[in-house]
Amino acid sequence: MRDVAILGVGLNKKWGELWSMSLRDIYVEAALDALDDAGVDHIDSMYVGCMTGGMFVDQEHLGCLMADYLGTNPVPATRVESACSSGGAALRQGFIEVASGISDLVLVGGVEKMTDVSGDEATHALSAASDMEYEAYQGITFPGLYALMARAHMHRYGTTRAQLAHVAVKNHRHGAMNPVAQYPFAVTLEEVLESVLVADPLRILDCSPITDGAAAVILCPLEAARKFAKKPLVKILASAQASSTIALHSRDDMTWLESTAKAAAIAYRMAGKGPGDLQVAEVHDCFTIAEIMVLEALGIVERGRGGEAAASGMTALGGKIPVNTSGGLKSKGHPVGATGVAQAVEIATQLRGLAGPRQVPGARIGLTQNMGGTGGSSVVHIFEAV
Amino acid sequence: MRDVAILGVGLNKKWGELWSMSLRDIYVEAALDALDDAGVDHIDSMYVGCMTGGMFVDQEHLGCLMADYLGTNPVPATRVESACSSGGAALRQGFIEVASGISDLVLVGGVEKMTDVSGDEATHALSAASDMEYEAYQGITFPGLYALMARAHMHRYGTTRAQLAHVAVKNHRHGAMNPVAQYPFAVTLEEVLESVLVADPLRILDCSPITDGAAAVILCPLEAARKFAKKPLVKILASAQASSTIALHSRDDMTWLESTAKAAAIAYRMAGKGPGDLQVAEVHDCFTIAEIMVLEALGIVERGRGGEAAASGMTALGGKIPVNTSGGLKSKGHPVGATGVAQAVEIATQLRGLAGPRQVPGARIGLTQNMGGTGGSSVVHIFEAV
Repeated sequence: MRDVAILGVGLNKKWGELWSMSLRDIYVEAALDALDDAGVDHIDSMYVGCMTGGMFVDQEHLGCLMADYLGTNPVPATRVESACSSGGAALRQGFIEVASGISDLVLVGGVEKMTDVSGDEATHALSAASDMEYEAYQGITFPGLYALMARAHMHRYGTTRAQLAHVAVKNHRHGAMNPVAQYPFAVTLEEVLESVLVADPLRILDCSPITDGAAAVILCPLEAARKFAKKPLVKILASAQASSTIALHSRDDMTWLESTAKAAAIAYRMAGKGPGDLQVAEVHDCFTIAEIMVLEALGIVERGRGGEAAASGMTALGGKIPVNTSGGLKSKGHPVGATGVAQAVEIATQLRGLAGPRQVPGARIGLTQNMGGTGGSSVVHIFEAV
Repeated sequence: MRDVAILGVGLNKKWGELWSMSLRDIYVEAALDALDDAGVDHIDSMYVGCMTGGMFVDQEHLGCLMADYLGTNPVPATRVESACSSGGAALRQGFIEVASGISDLVLVGGVEKMTDVSGDEATHALSAASDMEYEAYQGITFPGLYALMARAHMHRYGTTRAQLAHVAVKNHRHGAMNPVAQYPFAVTLEEVLESVLVADPLRILDCSPITDGAAAVILCPLEAARKFAKKPLVKILASAQASSTIALHSRDDMTWLESTAKAAAIAYRMAGKGPGDLQVAEVHDCFTIAEIMVLEALGIVERGRGGEAAASGMTALGGKIPVNTSGGLKSKGHPVGATGVAQAVEIATQLRGLAGPRQVPGARIGLTQNMGGTGGSSVVHIFEAV
């Protein structure tokens, strides 16, 4: 297997409610941004991470569509879906294709267009990431599922309502420095705690928003990148994926994200690194409780101690390991198919030292963790500046 | 890159209108059949080819769901979508993963559950393989698109209405020998020509049906297969994919399947074989005209001469190169996400000499061609008995 590098990264100009842009427009804008950043004029293959073009905008066959509108056909173009970890899963497929030697230049883009439907319809479409027959059809949707996880975590470990809020406060503070973010403004602890209740204990400011957006990266063999790309190069040290039960009620323990723990274990072994080696991480904070549980599953904090991390400043810019410097799903937005790719964009930007006001000084090794549903799927990547 | 073999194949017991089975049941039945055939008790990774679980049964996150119900989590489980070529595209991802060395035992399954919705809803869901905004929303669905292709082919090359019908007659004759087939019965030329008109010149017996079904294969490195699998082994000589415009109106020539021609050229080069080396092929006969155009794009017949192939007996069992010995999409059925994998199941069965009454004597090299939409995507695989 060949070593793989990220040669360029891109995002569409602004994440949010993009009513004047269609699914294809958003993807193409991010892909062109990445091609421009990489300085290449062709690709050998491409991927589209997208959760549900079908349920959001009545469109499937997304590889073909995007290759057509990007002007890259006849290259192979494949859509990858893993619910909210579709972007991470697409990145893994691109990584494998370059590592295998089949292709040299691979575009991995993620996209979702979520605001062309009503709020009820969006909730329904997102429920397709759960076990629709045994969860959503019985009346529970994602805020409710994560509320159950939050309550269980609070009950078992003493995690507090304020600790949840600190995750939102931290990520909004980071996101206020990210011009692409959907909600680039700070929020106070009081604002989170007094925001409207969605599913007890989760309030609206504990939840990531409904977002239109796209992200893209260009992958190539590390040896080829050494010849013409600017330093530092971003090497993908590890790409790992794992699955767990799709339904929350099938888990032995709903305070533990087994798929994230499994994917992280594989990734750490593949990279020859551990959580102590990381200087920066982007993790899946679809709800505030998710970031807390993910940090535990990644071994960045001890099991049960995730609630203290944001509150203590450990995971803020300036702390021991800044988490979600981009603003995370919470402030930057969560176009579900794009999120996993956008996490890689942020980490690559950090490792190249180009993150501006939200730069983590001297960041050399970073991690992304992207998950689907309530953690039925997780994808973990580790990157190093070389 | 490592050589890759098919270690086992499987189908769910019967294709058709499976009202007592859900999407997950059908996939699991085929996957267990393949695991049993391969004689293995674990896998390292799995793929799910499916066009639109979202629009047909409100369910995405299909990798996770199937791993859960098959009992294979925590292995990585990824859903691949490329409209009606989702199965072929999933097979290519599995091939790349084994070839790369990342995984040894990979399950590739394809599935679709299409009969839980009304006929109108199924037509709408399938339209998501076209350019929904510029084709389906303007009033043209797949029978209409393929009718345009058929009329253009008849006009340019003198292809006749009877030649189209001969494709259906041949494939139903083959399918009558396939116990899994949805419509395992012969039809006469007169029956096809007098069947109800759908979109002139295509009649109902020119169209593949709406089907519930699944197919699965187990892939492994060829060297490992040599150690314990029964002979002959089925080696994947080539796996290639190409794209074209998603909309038919964007093509220079709507009588020519550019994506199939491009994918075939890559596959022939990769395999070191040409169309003259093939003894059997499974191709994408979603409509009778499709088989005619595909044979031309594959170089099995000259351009413009596809109409003569079925009528002459060349592509029937006993002919020079039997095509769609399984019955094809036409008689066996077309659960869109399963089709590309089921084609590989049929070719592997032929190369192992296990096709019973529909066996092609001495078949050593076979090809599959699977396409999405009106040919916006094509995937071509070449297999050899070794």
